[in-house]
Formats: sequence, structure tokens, C-alpha cells
Amino acid sequence: MSGTASRIPAVDGLRADARQNRDRIVEVAGALFAERGLDVPMAAIARRAGVGVATLYRRFPTKESLVAEVFADQFAACVSVVDEALADPDPWRGFCTLVEKVCAMQAVDRGFSAAVVASLPHAIDLDRERERGLRGFAELVRRAKAAGRLRPDFSEDDLVLLLMANGGIVAHSADAALAASRRLVAYLLTSFAGDGPLPPPVALSLRDVPHLATSRT
Amino acid sequence: MSGTASRIPAVDGLRADARQNRDRIVEVAGALFAERGLDVPMAAIARRAGVGVATLYRRFPTKESLVAEVFADQFAACVSVVDEALADPDPWRGFCTLVEKVCAMQAVDRGFSAAVVASLPHAIDLDRERERGLRGFAELVRRAKAAGRLRPDFSEDDLVLLLMANGGIVAHSADAALAASRRLVAYLLTSFAGDGPLPPPVALSLRDVPHLATSRT
Repeated sequence: MSGTASRIPAVDGLRADARQNRDRIVEVAGALFAERGLDVPMAAIARRAGVGVATLYRRFPTKESLVAEVFADQFAACVSVVDEALADPDPWRGFCTLVEKVCAMQAVDRGFSAAVVASLPHAIDLDRERERGLRGFAELVRRAKAAGRLRPDFSEDDLVLLLMANGGIVAHSADAALAASRRLVAYLLTSFAGDGPLPPPVALSLRDVPHLATSRT
Repeated sequence: MSGTASRIPAVDGLRADARQNRDRIVEVAGALFAERGLDVPMAAIARRAGVGVATLYRRFPTKESLVAEVFADQFAACVSVVDEALADPDPWRGFCTLVEKVCAMQAVDRGFSAAVVASLPHAIDLDRERERGLRGFAELVRRAKAAGRLRPDFSEDDLVLLLMANGGIVAHSADAALAASRRLVAYLLTSFAGDGPLPPPVALSLRDVPHLATSRT
């Protein structure tokens, strides 16, 4: 089964059956992360995928490498939401759409909410993407303020505040969590567009968002 | 050391040394609950209090009875915040004060946030107090709406939404959590007083608030 020098036709450097195993692992891990967050043991993933633990570790030597693979698509989707928002000629509409979409993703998938902001030590590409997403968000904030639609005392740190609050919206079902998240987000967007006294912004780190395992931010 | 028939002067049915033990347990349990939530094992509480596990269980046969004792004062304080809010001639100011105080309590004490809304099976008095607090809150909502200060589509379920969101504000230090909670609450109060489209309210149970172990609601 193993052996990189195998003469059997390979797909991305893996034989077809190994590729199937790999796809199965990624699919199962995605379902388990969504359900229970990133704390699911590697052994539980191997069991559900019907592969041995040794096989799992041969494909993914670390939990981080598996997380990176599972969420690569969703992560890219998240960054492309920022790009779309920046492309919107109405920066406030772009800002709202961005906040709504990211919070909806976070509400329905506990693993994703963790993976989006986690700095995965060996996933430099994800880190770079995350930085790009944050820079895009900052630019959107600047434009929405310049358009007079976002209150001037909105702080970029408030994005973390929002993600922390939204991360507290964990209900028994994904449906209830999504509905609750939508209402919370609507309340907060109303407030972001309004005025009224605010305490000073709080310098929060993404690592303060619940259920996130970050090694650095 | 034991023996309820002892002739040594008793305080509340306990000898002075037993009373000291009991007070020490309650103090230590309060500190540990605040720090780590209600999941702290009874054995850890006994160890920190410097008593044997048997002694701990003799004083508090269940975790619930210990939790009820630890938070009785804070729980009463919480209900009296509702009473104060109702006594305020300005119902909107009363409403804001109530929300701010309860969220601040929740932000700085993870154990308290759990205990406030947990239905402790054997703590009927706490349950009754909780019902009284919720009825008072409903009355305050009615008055603040009648005064035209609280948006008419504010739902009592939004209190749970607020507690869930605020429960997500868990930072590394109580200071940061309190500051973050204050900013979140200020944003939400601004929105509660304003208008703008909202998705329908979500029927949430207090058991959906993170870190709460509720047996029923």
C-alpha cells in the first residue's frame, strides 16, 4: 500500500486507493469537527473513517495538518467573502454582508469557527490568507466610516468582540444557533450604524474567541 | 470532632470548628467556581480547603447543595437588582441598569453565570427566586416599551440571546472580560433603543447559555 516509488498510476502523488482513504478521512474529520469542535481525538476520526490510526498519521502527521486540509476550502471561501465585500460599490452593504456571512459560518460549524482564526503552526498559507482577510476587513471599515455609515468609534477590535459574542451562541441545534446568531448580528449591525455612548474599545486577541486553539496571533 | 449531640456551644447547629470548616469550604468553592466554572471536582475543592473528601460530603452531600450555598448571596443580589430596576421611576434607565449589572456579574464570575440560571434540582428556593427575577424582568420590558424607549419588537427571549452572547465574552483575565462585556452591552443597549430590521425572535432556553448545567428550565 505504501511506497512513493510505486509504479501504479498516482493521483497527486497518491495511489487511487490511498487517495480514497485520504478523501474519506477528510470528509469524516470535517463532520466531526463541525459537530464537536477541534478537540475530537485523532483516534475517533480514524475509527469513524474505518482506517487504522497508523494510516491516519501517515496521511496527516499532525492534527494541524488535518485541520488545515479540512478547512482549506471554507477558509478560502471566508477570504473570498472579504474580497466580495471590498468589491461592493456600497461599503456599508459590503461590511454588513461580510459580518453576516462570517457569523453564519461560525454559528453552524464549531470546527470552522475555530479553524478560521486559529494560527496553525505549519499552515503558513492559511496564516497568510488570514492576514489578507484582516487587512481587507480593515480597509472595509475605513471605507464604511468614510461613507458615514459606520460609526467613527467602531474599532477593528470590535470584530473580535463580535466573534466572541457570536461564539457564545451555541444552541442544541445548528438551526437554532443560526437563527439566534442572525438576530444578534442584526442587533449589532443596527448599533454599529448608530450612535450613543460606548466604553472604550478593548484590545482583544483572536485567541480570546471561545473554542479557539491558537498558538499565536 | 463529630456528633450533633455535642455540648460545646453550636452556631447554626454546628460546633464552632465545624462551622469554620464549612465557611472555609464555601469560600474556596466560590473562588474555584469563579475561576473555572461549576465543573471543578469536589475532590479539588476538598484539597484546596484542606479538608477530607468525606468531610466535604458530610457538609454538602451534593454538588448542587454546595453551589446553592456558595451563590445564595450573589443570587439574592441578582434578584434585588431586578427589584431596584423596577423601583426606578424611569423604566428604560431601570432596564439598562439591570442588563449592565447582570452582564457584569456574568463576565467576572464564570461560576455565577452558571449558577444564576441553573435549575438546581434540590434548591427550590433558588428556583422560586429565579422565577421571581424573570417575572420582574418581563414587567420591566413591558414598562420600557410603554415608555417608548425599548423597541416594540424586543422579545423576552432576547435576554437569553444577550446572556449567550455575553457568555461568549470569556477572555484570559476577568478585567478584559468585564471591559469587553461592557462594550458589547453598550452596543446592544443602543440597538435595543433603536430601530431597523430584525429577524424574528428565537425561542431560546436558558439551558442554551454556555457553561450552564441546567436540569430543566
